[in-house]
This record gives sequence, C-alpha cells and structure tokens, in this order.
Amino acid sequence: MDGVEIARSRHDRRSADSVPDYSDYVPLSLETVPPRLAHYDGIAARLGGTPDDWSVREVGDGNLNFVYIVEGPAGSVCVKQALPYVRLVGESWPLPLARSFYEYSALVRQAERSGHVPEILHFDGPQALVVMENLAPHIIWRKALMARERHETAAPIMGRFLAETLFRSSDLSLSAETKKREIALFSGNTALCKITEDLVFTDPYRDHPLNRWTSPELDATVAAIRADAEWKIAIQELKYMFLTRAEALVHGDAHTGSVMVAKAATGEDIRVIDPEFAFYGPMGFDLGAAIANLFLSYYSQDGRGPDPGPYQAWLLTAIARLWDTFASRFAELWRTERTGDAYPPTLYEAQDQTDASEAALARFLVRLEADTLGFAGAKMARRILGLAGVADLETIEPATVRAGCERRALALARRLVVDRERIGSVACAIVEAKGILGEVK
Amino acid sequence: MDGVEIARSRHDRRSADSVPDYSDYVPLSLETVPPRLAHYDGIAARLGGTPDDWSVREVGDGNLNFVYIVEGPAGSVCVKQALPYVRLVGESWPLPLARSFYEYSALVRQAERSGHVPEILHFDGPQALVVMENLAPHIIWRKALMARERHETAAPIMGRFLAETLFRSSDLSLSAETKKREIALFSGNTALCKITEDLVFTDPYRDHPLNRWTSPELDATVAAIRADAEWKIAIQELKYMFLTRAEALVHGDAHTGSVMVAKAATGEDIRVIDPEFAFYGPMGFDLGAAIANLFLSYYSQDGRGPDPGPYQAWLLTAIARLWDTFASRFAELWRTERTGDAYPPTLYEAQDQTDASEAALARFLVRLEADTLGFAGAKMARRILGLAGVADLETIEPATVRAGCERRALALARRLVVDRERIGSVACAIVEAKGILGEVK
Repeated sequence: MDGVEIARSRHDRRSADSVPDYSDYVPLSLETVPPRLAHYDGIAARLGGTPDDWSVREVGDGNLNFVYIVEGPAGSVCVKQALPYVRLVGESWPLPLARSFYEYSALVRQAERSGHVPEILHFDGPQALVVMENLAPHIIWRKALMARERHETAAPIMGRFLAETLFRSSDLSLSAETKKREIALFSGNTALCKITEDLVFTDPYRDHPLNRWTSPELDATVAAIRADAEWKIAIQELKYMFLTRAEALVHGDAHTGSVMVAKAATGEDIRVIDPEFAFYGPMGFDLGAAIANLFLSYYSQDGRGPDPGPYQAWLLTAIARLWDTFASRFAELWRTERTGDAYPPTLYEAQDQTDASEAALARFLVRLEADTLGFAGAKMARRILGLAGVADLETIEPATVRAGCERRALALARRLVVDRERIGSVACAIVEAKGILGEVK
Repeated sequence: MDGVEIARSRHDRRSADSVPDYSDYVPLSLETVPPRLAHYDGIAARLGGTPDDWSVREVGDGNLNFVYIVEGPAGSVCVKQALPYVRLVGESWPLPLARSFYEYSALVRQAERSGHVPEILHFDGPQALVVMENLAPHIIWRKALMARERHETAAPIMGRFLAETLFRSSDLSLSAETKKREIALFSGNTALCKITEDLVFTDPYRDHPLNRWTSPELDATVAAIRADAEWKIAIQELKYMFLTRAEALVHGDAHTGSVMVAKAATGEDIRVIDPEFAFYGPMGFDLGAAIANLFLSYYSQDGRGPDPGPYQAWLLTAIARLWDTFASRFAELWRTERTGDAYPPTLYEAQDQTDASEAALARFLVRLEADTLGFAGAKMARRILGLAGVADLETIEPATVRAGCERRALALARRLVVDRERIGSVACAIVEAKGILGEVK
C-alpha cells in the first residue's frame, strides 16, 4: 500500500496516537471544502488546478457523517468529516468527534495488516477529517447484491481481510504489552460501542421508541420474540462476549454496506471502509456481521424479482467461501506468524509437537465458528426488529411478501443465536438456512 | 471502612487516577522511614511521640517489595514500598514502580466494593509507597493451614469478597463506559501480568532456566507433562482467556499467602492483601487461585504430620464453602444490583420474566465454575513445576514423601485443566481430589 506508506511518513504515527483536541473544530460545507483541502500537503497536486477549479458534492448516505467527493482537473479525493452528532437524527443525539480518530487509527492498522482499505491521503485530527482516495467506479456491495450482481472475489477477500486484521491484532501476533497498549488506545471509543450494545443486543428485545419494523404483519413475531426466554438469555451471552472479550481489533461494523466493490478490466477491486466502530472485541463479531448480511440478502431475494434460486445458491456459496477463506488464511498465519504471547510455538513446534499446535488451532476455530454464528444471528435480527433496517429487505413490496422474507430471516437468526454451539459450523448454518426457506411462510 | 473514607477524602481520587511521576523516587531504609512518615498527615498522631520514639523493622517476606512495621508509643503502621526490581532476584530483574499505584488503586476499589482489605492511611504515589494499618495479630492464612489451624470464616469471607469485588467491577454492575475507563486505567500493569503469563501458563510446560522442582523424584512426571499435548493445549486456552477476557477487576494473586487471618475475642478477622497484580481479567482466575492453594494444602497434609484425615476433610469443606458462598452472594447481587450494561433487567424482570433472569444466572455460573476449575489446575501445577513453590509442599521431608504429595497434586491439576468442563463443578472436583488421594502413589 504505497499511499499508506506515504501517509504514514507524512503524519508521524506517534503524534496521532492520542485523541486530538477539538477546540478549533469547524464543520465543513460545500463552500469551505476546497480552501480547507488547499492547506493539506499533496492534495492540490492530486486534484490539479486551483481550488476554484474543484467541484464538490456531498454523498454521505451513511447515518453518521458528512462525506464529500472533490473533483479537480487531474483527479479526485473523498473527504469524510465527523459531526458532533448523529447526522440521521440531528443535534439531539450527540456523538463524539473522536470517532474520526478511531476510524483513522483503525484504517492505518488495517492497511498495514491486510490492505483492502481506502488509501489515506491526509488525516486532520482536530478537524475530525480524513481525506481518502475516491473509490470509483466502486459501489456498495449491498447494492450490488440487491441488483444480483456477482463479484466473485468479494467474499473470499473479506474472509482474508478478516483473518489478517484479526489475527495480526490479537495475542497470537502481538506481545501482551503491545496489545494492552492498543486496547487502551481504542478504549475511549465507548460511544460507538454503546450504539452496538443498545441497538444490536438490547433494544430489539424490549419496548423501545427507536425500534421499528416494516409492517404490522410482524407484530405477532415481535411479541413472540419478547416472550422468548431462551433467545433473550442467549442474546445477553453474546452481549457479554461483546463487552468482555478483547480478542482483536475488530472493524465493528463489517456488514455488506461497509464493503465497496468494482469490476475493472484488470479484475475486481474490493475495499473495506468505515471502521469508526473499531475496538478490541471478539473476533466472531466481524465474521458474524459479514455473514449475517449475506444471509439477509439470501432471504430478501424472494422479494427481489423472479427466479431467485440461482442467485440464492450463489449467495450461500459466497458465505461458505468467506468462512473457508478466513479459516484457511487464519490457519496459515497460525502456522507461520504466531509471534504473540498466546499459544507460543515453544510449547508445541519447538518440542516437536506440531500435531498439538494443529489440534489447538482446530479447537480455536471450533469455538470461533460457534461465536461467529451467534453474532451473525444477533446482527440479522437487529436489522429487522431494531432502529436500522437494511435496504435489501426494506425496499421489498408488497408488505406481505416482505414480512415473509423477514420471518424466514428471523427464524434463522433465532437458531444461530440460541443453537450456535449445536449448529457449530457455517456449513451446517447454510443447511439450516435452506431448510427455513422451504419451511417458514 | 472508616479509614478508607478518611484516606479518600484526604487524597482526591481523581488526582490519583493516573500513574505517578517517579523522578523523585528514593528507596527507603530503616533509618529514613521515620522522617518520611513524619511528613504524612495523621501518621505521627497515630504512632504517637516523635520520630525518635518510633521503632522500625523490615518484615517483607514476599518476593517483590520492602515492607516495614513501624511502632510508636500510641500505635503502629505498615509501610509497603515498591522497588524498581524484583526483591527476590535483584536489580537484574527490573519491575516497574507503578505496581504500587495499581495496588493502591485496587485496594481503594476493593474497600468500596467489599471491605476485608487493610485500611489505607496514606498513599505517596511518587514514592511508590502505601502506608496501611498494621494487621496484628494476623498471620498469613497459608501458615495457619500449614499448622492445621482452623479459621472457619476465612473461606466463606474469601468467597464473599470475590463475589463482591468481581461482580461490582464487572459489566453486570458498571456501565460499559465506566468499565472501559477502568480497563484503560489498569491496562498499564502489563509487567505484573507478564509474570503470570510466563510463570503460570508457559514456563512450566517447556525447558526454562527459572523452572525448579524440589526433587529428582519428579523428573519423570515433568517429562510426561512436557509430552502431554492435551494438557498443553488446555493450558494455552486458559492463558488465552487470561489475555483476552476483561470481565472484572481481578486481584490477580488471590492465593492463601495473600490472605491474613486472626482469631480475636470478638471473632475472626480476615483480610485480603497485596493486589499489585490487579487488572481486568477473567473472574475465574481469582476463584481458581484461592481454590488451588487450598487443594495444595490438602495434598501437603500427608507430609505434615500424623493423622491428616480430619484436617483434610476440613479443607475440602472449606473449598466447598468458598465456592458456595461466592455463588450465593453473586446470585444475591445478580438479583439486586444488576445496574450494568450486561443482562439488563429491562429484558427479564421488567418483562415479568424473572425465571429467564434466573436461568441466565445459572448458565453464567456454570461457565464461571468450569473456568474456575481450569484456573485452579493451572495455579496448582505452576507451584510444583515453575519458579515459585509453596511452603506447604516445599517444607515436607523426606523428598520421597514430598514427591508423592506433589504427584497427587499434579494429577488433580491435570484433570482440572483438561477436563474442567466435564468435571464442571467444585463439588465434583472435590470428589476427584479424594479419589486421587487413594489412587496416586
């Protein structure tokens, strides 16, 4: 990642390893973006011409931030600035500017550990602002899935990205001292974690003004879930894992809306964006988020046009490939890069017991695969019962068809959350998913 | 805890919530203790007279620090000062002074959450020095156990202390934001954690110059353990839990040498001391440490004089009482103080589903009890195979008798580490322990 190398030499990492002072923060507008960018080294050269030659448009379709695309005679950049509140809701829901610092800190680390993230061109900490390459002609993976497009490398690259970013930020790779310093660095990102704690693990299972579901057809299902003690116990076990298991620097929001995909003459290009929810948490949370959103797409296809079967089959293959690529890359790193304090090779390989190391890896992955299924179920249900829906399902008409898709997704979600250890593997979850497609009306 | 209240009002907690600057640190000597104490508010009044009237003796029998008892005409105090190295080894093994800050920070929190810790009279951060009440006529619990003394309240009070300190520092009690701040505060205590990571979970299972066992009689046993893949996989699962599960502020060194006991006319007095290993880790680690050292005492009794049976039976009862008191106090707190972000009552009790809350508690304790057994096994084995032995076993003569006791302890340790989930409960572990007493020679 050349761009990242440049960005790193330009902005000494050490100076960026604490939350900036925001007292001079000013939110940008269409008019103030060009003069601001003109201050940053290298940006004007990339865009070409002078600030007067640059066109700016606001494209943020996320819920939290402003995102500008700036185009000049020679090139374009993307500018992302955090606001001191949730964009979707307004000033009544404040949210710390520091999320920009955590996003930048995560991007730098992900770039080093795996790549497949946008190139960072400039980080202006006190302005809560990151200037990145403008990813074009990329589109959001979720939208590609809604249009039944097939990006064959997206799932395996996501699996590989997660293997590399999770392994290399964990105790398998880092010394305990380094990892604890990293935990401390990200431990201030509590406001973003709190959104997940509430919206994923809590609010959908109680009356809450922020909950919404897309039609009264689901009212009975929602009532049944609120009465479902097993589900509510299991969902809190998962929340407790989210709160306590500081295994790796997780992306924190690794759904299909955080992946950008493009087809080009030279092949596909896949990028993982928006890690502002990053923190030290359970590895299975990222894997679960990715798989959950592929399962949601799977169930949505029944409402997205005729003959969904072939695309649904492709989606299940993508889910299997995501996990399989993850597991095989993770195993490769286990065998070749185990430099951390956990499972030191001095106990296994160095004592001529490679088989013991392989057995430890197998047990590790069994546990992680069950965690992954549980988090996948949690992430599926919140998209149907909680505040933030997904376009895959929400755009389905009529409501009766949509509700059927949602009920099937919820049926899988429950099994994954409650029976994650019995189901045990992504392969078995895929079998469960297919069964539900025929079973649940 | 009146004394703690006083200490807290005297030393504003906020100002003590970061690691001190040690540039003016000077290690004390017998001669410099009195003039130093004379500077501290309230200490002179407690001792009475003038510094010339105070007698000082050094009593540190631990491995790390200097501990002075200072007596004056009116009273006495205990002064604990950290050294920039490991006392036992010398300057060749440096160890951060900041452990004194972590010990103080833990003591203040334990006092608030449970009591049963020494009263803090003064904390001099930059001198890495804590002035505490002088616990007299207390003795170390381990020594009482070696002398077959029975302090009936020690095990239940330890169980209660652990329930209160662990629950009230966890996500069951604290908001995620507060807990993450606490994690960050203690995340700098890496050097002490590293000692545990190495000495408990790693070095005993490989050749290491610091390992020692007390007689060649154990050589074959040690060789068998090094070849035992199942044991080495399981011990690293436990180490991974130690490294990643930030459940609660654990004492970190909760063995029977960190408990002081006294009999007085008004009843017994039990105190938990020396939490300098404190950090956010798995709850089962403290419970395991306490139970492990009671099991070590159990096996040591065969070498500690005739007719060990009645005292061994008392020890097993103590182990059961420790866990039972822990579990029942923890359950009480679960029912009455669940104010944290985990398992919020709004999902259970507030929806008329108290039975779901009870089921969640039961599942929580099942998992925690298995963790406890695993950590107990790890802590037993390290005391026989690693750097730091325990007097209970080391003082047994002749070596053949001692080796038998140690082999039996190691047999239980292995079962607890490898089969912690199958054994599942402290009650079943006690049955295993008794079986081994007859089986293993």
